[in-house]
Amino acid sequence: MHSDLWVEEKFEDFLGLKFKVEKVLFSGKSDFQTVDVVQTKGHGKMLLNDGLIMVTERDEFAYHDMISHVPLFVHPNPKNVLIIGGGDGGTAREVLRHGGVEKCTMVEIDGMVVDACKAHIPQTAKDLDHPKLNLIIGDGVAYVKECIRENREKFDVIIVDSTDPIGPAQPLFGEEFYRDVYTCLSDDGIVVSQGESSWYAMEIQQSLLQVLNAVFEQSYLYSFSNLTYPGGLWSFTFATKKYHPVKDFDPQRVAGSGLEFDYYNADLHSAAFALPNFVKKGLAGLISND
Amino acid sequence: MHSDLWVEEKFEDFLGLKFKVEKVLFSGKSDFQTVDVVQTKGHGKMLLNDGLIMVTERDEFAYHDMISHVPLFVHPNPKNVLIIGGGDGGTAREVLRHGGVEKCTMVEIDGMVVDACKAHIPQTAKDLDHPKLNLIIGDGVAYVKECIRENREKFDVIIVDSTDPIGPAQPLFGEEFYRDVYTCLSDDGIVVSQGESSWYAMEIQQSLLQVLNAVFEQSYLYSFSNLTYPGGLWSFTFATKKYHPVKDFDPQRVAGSGLEFDYYNADLHSAAFALPNFVKKGLAGLISND
Repeated sequence: MHSDLWVEEKFEDFLGLKFKVEKVLFSGKSDFQTVDVVQTKGHGKMLLNDGLIMVTERDEFAYHDMISHVPLFVHPNPKNVLIIGGGDGGTAREVLRHGGVEKCTMVEIDGMVVDACKAHIPQTAKDLDHPKLNLIIGDGVAYVKECIRENREKFDVIIVDSTDPIGPAQPLFGEEFYRDVYTCLSDDGIVVSQGESSWYAMEIQQSLLQVLNAVFEQSYLYSFSNLTYPGGLWSFTFATKKYHPVKDFDPQRVAGSGLEFDYYNADLHSAAFALPNFVKKGLAGLISND
Repeated sequence: MHSDLWVEEKFEDFLGLKFKVEKVLFSGKSDFQTVDVVQTKGHGKMLLNDGLIMVTERDEFAYHDMISHVPLFVHPNPKNVLIIGGGDGGTAREVLRHGGVEKCTMVEIDGMVVDACKAHIPQTAKDLDHPKLNLIIGDGVAYVKECIRENREKFDVIIVDSTDPIGPAQPLFGEEFYRDVYTCLSDDGIVVSQGESSWYAMEIQQSLLQVLNAVFEQSYLYSFSNLTYPGGLWSFTFATKKYHPVKDFDPQRVAGSGLEFDYYNADLHSAAFALPNFVKKGLAGLISND
């Protein structure tokens, strides 16, 4: 390919994010979506599902640090973790760095995403064969139902590492799914979910938080910075049966873990729950951050 | 204009941010730069200098809240404030909301920016005729030299609301300028400066912080979220003769001020100084945030 190749993600009809592409590494069409991996200039390798940017090597650590380490350092002793989605492997990679985690189950609906990342983005996919990882290609919504029906294990932390609420991820934003998640969590369990952008998608945040509030005792939103998702200031929701994400967080555990991070640290953990006023106003009554 | 009009800001040769334009409201060429004001779809009115996005109505409050209220709520009694740059008027607007501020001097090099914003972006420019504002069209670098030579007033807070260190703003990133700023500050003065993006422009941050450290006792970096600057996570530097930006900050003063903000709040003030590890590593030895 010698022409001037760019990939552009449009947001509604008024915003476009363009990234220079040096080489297309993989292009496929699964039962669920199109899957592309490209080598960009400036952002390393990039995964796109249905043309939407999922991951780049340049900034993926921010997302994966914050979706994983926030709940895993709030829960005092997370041993059994479930990831719904997360096919690129970055979330599993971070979860598995916690020595106390005995088992991590990951349920990704699209095997093509996993295979493409294993082949082309080892930076995120490198631990997808980890002995503690139980990787299941299947439907996360059906999986939690199955867990309940068969009265299987409970999870200390569930991480919903989903795409936007369109296409295969849509049921992951619904109340039925979160009722099942609640049932699958241990008595002091935490669920963290990909929570979109407060700048551009506050209606989705409102709708997801309404669902969480219908099911959980407390819900929170926390934020981090992302280079390739429209809005930059991106969010995760944190819903809990017991623990407050800041008051029950012991910063000493981060230092004591011996783990080093490129994005996450103990100060940032608490700071991420301090939200701009326009977010607090837009989500008033839906979050317990204050 | 009935064609499909977009404005695109390129960053280096690998990133582009595109915004839908409904109408061009103003286009001029001053002695310093091109100046454009466009009506966008989705981001309100937008000011561009030399094709770089300066301000949009949708997100300007984040920048202007954070450049103004952080120093003004750290300094215990800011009466005399100097703004260098800030031609759109948003920073002056926020500074002038503080009842204790007796005088605000604003030195903007480019009268065309001021005129274009007065005519087309009243949202930011609405207080440029405020009785407490001393608006000077002139060179900020020369202005601080003049202040020193004529042994004029001292400032409690100086805000360097500049563009990138290319074109007319270049001297605003140099050591000579900051030596003069130091001299123009009162004994407990604070200078806050536009500090670029840690994601894409850490070398500029390093260079600016080296300059600040050569002159000031302590330098800090704090961050906020922006929609239209490449990198999203954007920064201000905070250099000080006396006050620590977090330890000397009294959150009660924010509540006591009676002011309401769309972005800034007391929790976010402190949280903004909690930086991701990659920023702390990249700026190690240059910031005193910890």
